[in-house]
Amino acid sequence: MGKGSEGDLKMRHLASTRSPDEYTALIDNLKDFIDSEVIPRENLSAAHDGAEVRRTAQELNALALARGLGAPRTRREDGGMALTWTECCAYLEQAGRSFLGPLALRCAPPTQPDVFALESLASPIQRERYLLPLLSGERASCFAMTEPAPGVGSDPRMLATTARRTSNGWVINGHKWFISGAMRADFAIVVAKTDAGPSWFLVDMDTPGFRIVRDIPTMEPFDIGGHAEILLEECAVPAEALIGEEGKGLAHSQLRLEGARLFHCMRYIGLASRAMSIAQDYALRRESQGTKLADHQMVQAMVADAHIQLYAARHIVLDVARRLDEGESIRHHSSMAKVFVSEAVYKVADSAVQICGALGISEDIPLSMILRMLRPFRIYDGASEVHRAAIARRALHHGLTP
Amino acid sequence: MGKGSEGDLKMRHLASTRSPDEYTALIDNLKDFIDSEVIPRENLSAAHDGAEVRRTAQELNALALARGLGAPRTRREDGGMALTWTECCAYLEQAGRSFLGPLALRCAPPTQPDVFALESLASPIQRERYLLPLLSGERASCFAMTEPAPGVGSDPRMLATTARRTSNGWVINGHKWFISGAMRADFAIVVAKTDAGPSWFLVDMDTPGFRIVRDIPTMEPFDIGGHAEILLEECAVPAEALIGEEGKGLAHSQLRLEGARLFHCMRYIGLASRAMSIAQDYALRRESQGTKLADHQMVQAMVADAHIQLYAARHIVLDVARRLDEGESIRHHSSMAKVFVSEAVYKVADSAVQICGALGISEDIPLSMILRMLRPFRIYDGASEVHRAAIARRALHHGLTP
Amino acid sequence: MGKGSEGDLKMRHLASTRSPDEYTALIDNLKDFIDSEVIPRENLSAAHDGAEVRRTAQELNALALARGLGAPRTRREDGGMALTWTECCAYLEQAGRSFLGPLALRCAPPTQPDVFALESLASPIQRERYLLPLLSGERASCFAMTEPAPGVGSDPRMLATTARRTSNGWVINGHKWFISGAMRADFAIVVAKTDAGPSWFLVDMDTPGFRIVRDIPTMEPFDIGGHAEILLEECAVPAEALIGEEGKGLAHSQLRLEGARLFHCMRYIGLASRAMSIAQDYALRRESQGTKLADHQMVQAMVADAHIQLYAARHIVLDVARRLDEGESIRHHSSMAKVFVSEAVYKVADSAVQICGALGISEDIPLSMILRMLRPFRIYDGASEVHRAAIARRALHHGLTP
Amino acid sequence: MGKGSEGDLKMRHLASTRSPDEYTALIDNLKDFIDSEVIPRENLSAAHDGAEVRRTAQELNALALARGLGAPRTRREDGGMALTWTECCAYLEQAGRSFLGPLALRCAPPTQPDVFALESLASPIQRERYLLPLLSGERASCFAMTEPAPGVGSDPRMLATTARRTSNGWVINGHKWFISGAMRADFAIVVAKTDAGPSWFLVDMDTPGFRIVRDIPTMEPFDIGGHAEILLEECAVPAEALIGEEGKGLAHSQLRLEGARLFHCMRYIGLASRAMSIAQDYALRRESQGTKLADHQMVQAMVADAHIQLYAARHIVLDVARRLDEGESIRHHSSMAKVFVSEAVYKVADSAVQICGALGISEDIPLSMILRMLRPFRIYDGASEVHRAAIARRALHHGLTP
Repeated sequence: MGKGSEGDLKMRHLASTRSPDEYTALIDNLKDFIDSEVIPRENLSAAHDGAEVRRTAQELNALALARGLGAPRTRREDGGMALTWTECCAYLEQAGRSFLGPLALRCAPPTQPDVFALESLASPIQRERYLLPLLSGERASCFAMTEPAPGVGSDPRMLATTARRTSNGWVINGHKWFISGAMRADFAIVVAKTDAGPSWFLVDMDTPGFRIVRDIPTMEPFDIGGHAEILLEECAVPAEALIGEEGKGLAHSQLRLEGARLFHCMRYIGLASRAMSIAQDYALRRESQGTKLADHQMVQAMVADAHIQLYAARHIVLDVARRLDEGESIRHHSSMAKVFVSEAVYKVADSAVQICGALGISEDIPLSMILRMLRPFRIYDGASEVHRAAIARRALHHGLTP
Repeated sequence: MGKGSEGDLKMRHLASTRSPDEYTALIDNLKDFIDSEVIPRENLSAAHDGAEVRRTAQELNALALARGLGAPRTRREDGGMALTWTECCAYLEQAGRSFLGPLALRCAPPTQPDVFALESLASPIQRERYLLPLLSGERASCFAMTEPAPGVGSDPRMLATTARRTSNGWVINGHKWFISGAMRADFAIVVAKTDAGPSWFLVDMDTPGFRIVRDIPTMEPFDIGGHAEILLEECAVPAEALIGEEGKGLAHSQLRLEGARLFHCMRYIGLASRAMSIAQDYALRRESQGTKLADHQMVQAMVADAHIQLYAARHIVLDVARRLDEGESIRHHSSMAKVFVSEAVYKVADSAVQICGALGISEDIPLSMILRMLRPFRIYDGASEVHRAAIARRALHHGLTP
Repeated sequence: MGKGSEGDLKMRHLASTRSPDEYTALIDNLKDFIDSEVIPRENLSAAHDGAEVRRTAQELNALALARGLGAPRTRREDGGMALTWTECCAYLEQAGRSFLGPLALRCAPPTQPDVFALESLASPIQRERYLLPLLSGERASCFAMTEPAPGVGSDPRMLATTARRTSNGWVINGHKWFISGAMRADFAIVVAKTDAGPSWFLVDMDTPGFRIVRDIPTMEPFDIGGHAEILLEECAVPAEALIGEEGKGLAHSQLRLEGARLFHCMRYIGLASRAMSIAQDYALRRESQGTKLADHQMVQAMVADAHIQLYAARHIVLDVARRLDEGESIRHHSSMAKVFVSEAVYKVADSAVQICGALGISEDIPLSMILRMLRPFRIYDGASEVHRAAIARRALHHGLTP
Repeated sequence: MGKGSEGDLKMRHLASTRSPDEYTALIDNLKDFIDSEVIPRENLSAAHDGAEVRRTAQELNALALARGLGAPRTRREDGGMALTWTECCAYLEQAGRSFLGPLALRCAPPTQPDVFALESLASPIQRERYLLPLLSGERASCFAMTEPAPGVGSDPRMLATTARRTSNGWVINGHKWFISGAMRADFAIVVAKTDAGPSWFLVDMDTPGFRIVRDIPTMEPFDIGGHAEILLEECAVPAEALIGEEGKGLAHSQLRLEGARLFHCMRYIGLASRAMSIAQDYALRRESQGTKLADHQMVQAMVADAHIQLYAARHIVLDVARRLDEGESIRHHSSMAKVFVSEAVYKVADSAVQICGALGISEDIPLSMILRMLRPFRIYDGASEVHRAAIARRALHHGLTP
């Protein structure tokens, strides 16, 4: 049980007990749920209205449970599907086709990767107070690492937030921002530097000294719980707020991030796939220059590239998932997957918009909103440039053959 | 004097009477105006609030006039700058650096190209009632050509709106959409088919039978007067509503579009240039991995490409402007310019966002809003694919050497 | 008569009898063979000298056999390795690292796909006279389908060569070109139209009326048996020259091509991987601007992209191989693989050249020769444009989700 | 002592005395010469045969002179055309359409930039012995700067060759390679380090201690005088071998390079333009899938992009030429032009090959040879990466707006 060494977190493996047929039936069930219940409830003009989105999500949670559909990685005894990482690929892709899907299935960020981390790292008391309510949907979490310049962004060594040990706990001071999901969270996992190095702390949002300064406006069109700017000023937390081992925060963050990245990839493949499906339907209906758009080769080139790119994207992600299931380190491969997938899904969404012309630009259909949702993924969780540099340095200095 | 044949419109030339020094002083004046008056009045959080934007624009109109700055292509006797097309290049680039700039200088679309067209095509009475109030800013216009599928989009032959001749005028029926600027316009130039072919009509927005169905929501973050869906149902206009020659609407539209495209190119070069300037400043301040972003070669590559691409963009646009000034047809060259510039400015803005990371995604600075503003330009005024096909067909069938 | 119906050819499955450890040992053995025997025998300055290449290949054939290494897909009873398609992936990648590797292992085109096709299609007598000598290396083959304009190129319907039935056989007339490997072949598989449609014929190169006009010079730097232009003038062959079923030539060609494409992908991934390995070594040694090239981020970006692209390429190819092993149709997926891999390996080789600068351009090292070898693959076996159009049409008209 | 200070070299301006009509007639004359005399003498199968190429070039020199066509930048009194840089653009583009054109017109590298440099830097005696015979074609030159690693490549500070002052001259020791044109040169301009810094020396190829080790084989298909590896071992030259000022070799090289780069750009635009013209002709003749290639949109996209890219390329180059004519520094702008043009012409040639399919790969037509000729330009004269870094550093640190 999780006092959470790195190895623990990495090796945690939910061996599948499902037959191929059961798995196929599960995915078909989910696909049908998304098509018949989730997509019809998308209300694009209210997509940025957090209260409305939450209301719809709760309605969908109930419908999903009634179909036996729940959080993919959560253990069965905690109400989840207990899928292996490999099994998650198609599951999250289906869920990801709608921006409401991950909420409906309790696998939206940041909850999903927070759960993943806490399952390995939480002490029994943390499990009781934080993890279980998170799994049941009673409470929501956020992950507070990023800081405004000159604090920690892409470079983890720049962490500026501090946690000072006191007689009965810790006092945290720092400035965080871009904390996704914070506007609807009940507690935060705060990364702060102690004498032993970066460490993780559980902090209730209503702790004195913890203050949400504002919700930073961004280009994202769907409410995903906001991106808060947060001040921690002499914010006192008890000793048992420390998660895992003091000073191991970097390793914890790295592992949380690797899992989070992979989940993003899976979901966004679904979103890009849906965008191009909408464009394909349009191309079959709409005429220009006397022939259907579908018969224009420049449209065909975009359609073909979408199929090719997502084909590659899926198989890279499957390979990383398999490595995770087998307990391998995915540091190198999840970086490669993140760069490839984030760029591929964005290109696919961009082509889908282009095929649909002015309609693609409009918010009558979700294409341009999908484009706006996908753009940040080339930056969040490590910008493409940071990953490319890291991939190349490992390749060059460890003699990895491409 | 506007009875407005094609030739007339094309040949209309405002010979410059400015010396190089006067021109340089003018551009410096404008640059200073944009930096000291316009940009400080940008209020990103209210950028989509039409009323607020209009209020600010009026304030800026007055400040511009006080500095001797006005609409670039309008004749001096009508209160304009009477710039040649070549002179417009730097003028509109400077104006375009802020989304408020073109409004401040009365050269925002759709007014600017409508003025351009009406100056050649308007009859004396049309000039009195429509053009002069447009020039003075008393009235605003919009251009109603595009229709929802299966009507006219990229292919002008698909025009579905009709104008039926009556004893004392015309009755128009049709469905238009994506009519930019309509939400703040007082009258529309409506393209409709008569027995003689596509024709242009001046229609006051309050004419019975002319109805704005709704403002179509789009990905654009700045208020530019909306993109209306409009129904014309037995909309009766007088005989003198016909602009130019009956049946010449296609030629009129083509010429209006060629001018509009060029203006867009000029303004958007300014916008992209500003985006990268912001990113350069950020790169000089922000550190990562122990060195300034400005010293990271992957950032340098994006900066260099922005400089190279905008260098090329400017010189292509200058060449097309020179051709217009010399009375040449720009059909082929304005297509090439539009494709190149629309793709170049978008890439530059995308790189600027990327360099600034999460801040680039946020709306604390305008980068992601600029990105969203530029995306539609690859579609509006002829999608890149339509232009590429047209360029190639001309090249192939007329034996043009690349 | 071949027992080889389409289904047969497709379903032919060599179930692996190897354990994972045996397979790993086999690949290690091959890798060591390529590094210690094959690469040292590359003589770049004689790479285009067919006689010299053949001599070296024969020497390497013997060395390979002595290590238990042979043709990958050939049955064990015929002296081969009897690998599954999936197992071929790593085997051909290793072989493909040197231009001599496929020759050394008897899996160079066009022999490899000819063997693949004949194993399913050859009648007992054809097996005796053509297939077995091909397997043993006694005889060499070529595949004569392509014709100069206006004959068959990318579009199989344009086949112009005819085969006329006579009392005791067939008389073939036609003009072929770009017949790879013909300069060292002993017999050709000729595709010609009979009354029943396109059909395949075995034609010995010394048959009267069969004439090699010339070896067409191309950009390829390594001797691969030339690209012959061939005239068939009243070329008479016996009845038993017909391969498989009359009129089924298109289906035969399609299947041969799908296999050939996949083999090309596997080999070329190896070649591109080697190119980047050479560049990585160079980047670690060579300094510029006071730091090693390996520490320049623009070099790192190229290295990272090579790793990412080849990672994706390998996993796409593995998926297509798995489908072949499971008897699925690979028409759609092999097209996607071919487009992706042909473009990816070319980009990787191009980057490798770029990293090595003038040395990369020189023929002191094989980089620019690899680049020249890979360029045609974007054209051979269906140009990227032809595949993209086919992929998109299938996607659009069969409602395939990307 | 050269009278050629940096300023001199930069300011040297040949004011045009030609009217626009005279200039147009000149270009038409040249165009006709290239089409009717030069291209018909291209012998692709002998393109790498230096002796044959030289013979043809001499024949063409005479024909050119008879038409009044000669070296573009050379003064009239020295038998040249005395064109301004701006006028050179179209002249060198026409000349560049054939690989024989620059030889025919005495403006092939390395002679052209060597002449450019010597015209400013040569002392009277150097002018007599080296420049005039160079202008008349009696003698040929090469420029020996580049060294194998760890010597000077992209980074000029790594110069390893030394020149030691003796009582009556200099003794040079060093190792050069990739010295273009050396295989047909009579003398070299050698860059070597003295106590005062990098300096230029005129060295006759037959000087004792000057040894061509070999002609380095490269991917280039046309003979351009080879790329020699050269050893200088105690190579003694007289005092008057020093060109310009001792220690100013870096500035001399920079200016020579800036001119050379621009000439390359002009010529290669012509070569790429010709490649696409050939492809356009082919696309109009060749059918696939029942329609002419010219009617396939994917072909049209390549054609359109070629037109757009070369349109931009020409106007960038014209702008740099104008700056040179006006005596401005072109360091920044010639870097931008070099990156843009080298990448644009390569893409255009690549598309031309792709459109022509197997024929494009063959050496029946020059397309793949043009592709091979253009590839090194992304490396020679400063690799794209080196220029991009330099452009960005200037932009960032001098606050240049893109």
